[in-house]
Amino acid sequence: MKSLEIKVVRKILEAGMRIAETNRRILKEKGITSFNFIGAPGAGKTSLLLKLIENLKDRYRIGVIEGDLATTRDAEKIYQTGVPVVQINTEGGCHLDANLVGKALENLPLEDIDILFIENVGNLVCPTAFDLGEDYKVGILSVPEGDDKPEKYPVIVKVSKAIVLNKIDMLPYFRFDRERFYFPIKKLSPSMPIFEVSCETGEGISKVVEWIISKVT
Amino acid sequence: MKSLEIKVVRKILEAGMRIAETNRRILKEKGITSFNFIGAPGAGKTSLLLKLIENLKDRYRIGVIEGDLATTRDAEKIYQTGVPVVQINTEGGCHLDANLVGKALENLPLEDIDILFIENVGNLVCPTAFDLGEDYKVGILSVPEGDDKPEKYPVIVKVSKAIVLNKIDMLPYFRFDRERFYFPIKKLSPSMPIFEVSCETGEGISKVVEWIISKVT
Repeated sequence: MKSLEIKVVRKILEAGMRIAETNRRILKEKGITSFNFIGAPGAGKTSLLLKLIENLKDRYRIGVIEGDLATTRDAEKIYQTGVPVVQINTEGGCHLDANLVGKALENLPLEDIDILFIENVGNLVCPTAFDLGEDYKVGILSVPEGDDKPEKYPVIVKVSKAIVLNKIDMLPYFRFDRERFYFPIKKLSPSMPIFEVSCETGEGISKVVEWIISKVT
Repeated sequence: MKSLEIKVVRKILEAGMRIAETNRRILKEKGITSFNFIGAPGAGKTSLLLKLIENLKDRYRIGVIEGDLATTRDAEKIYQTGVPVVQINTEGGCHLDANLVGKALENLPLEDIDILFIENVGNLVCPTAFDLGEDYKVGILSVPEGDDKPEKYPVIVKVSKAIVLNKIDMLPYFRFDRERFYFPIKKLSPSMPIFEVSCETGEGISKVVEWIISKVT
């Protein structure tokens, strides 16, 4: 049973990797730079996206893929900004996969997109294990979640190319030790950019915008 | 390939269900009532546990299983209270399963436990799909995560026997519409107990304690 399981799981993973490579090739051909936003429920992924779109949409053509278990709430918010958006409902699935993203790409005007933002399902764990064919994974954490999260969820640090710490306007109301937050990130990845932001007040957003622009090909 | 996959996945699930039934039988034989706490990272699962232990430990003998991807931070906090605790590190796994819990049970003094609290890995999605052999799943959400979480993550509502809304001391600082939070819960499960608490101030904890006691056999 065990070896059969391993064989089947490997075949599923290999199939996923092939589709991720196809997505990557398509995005490259179209000259699209892509970002996969990963964070727990309520970390502020959609709020950050809205702020980034607001700051980038006059200079770049943006597209969005919204991942959620249920509802189209997030896609509706993005739609209001005027950028093309496709909602994926995973119907209980805990992460986006390359196959779902590949299907979403078919429904976006790829010729007219410079930057693709993918908002993953709210989950700090599972989405880290799946290559969607994106260029950069970005980890979104927030002050109310606590300063121990990078230490307790090291996978998000390992796979991310940048970490955003959201809701810093809430720092006065929570016991949150910046040192304790930064230390495990710097230990695992000394050159990791860490952006402290508040999507509520707009503080720090410009630094994320600059980083995004520096990655656009 | 597809039918082979389905067969293998079914065998894995069936094996998990058998182990869950074994856990359930063992817990029943020992007269233990068990609760599986599920919530996103930072929702306050450990803080709630600490409050419940404080309020229950003079009347009941308590045991704890702590699930985390990495570190023994949470188990250390529980250990300070003097109750027996076993830490499970999933090494990246996104949920506890019956097999892991079965092994943890072997390391707890079951003869001397009335109430077993299991704290799952911080994840609002995957843990909802796994029967550990526990009596009650309890969903832990928090104000900073946003009022839209029950609607966006309906699985937690479907499997839970009670919902705890933590960090209500933060209500003045967040846009949080109670109606919007309650509505999808009441729609899916009209008689669901919903407890508003603050593990920081202690507000509302006594109601959760009463509910726990009402379930103890």
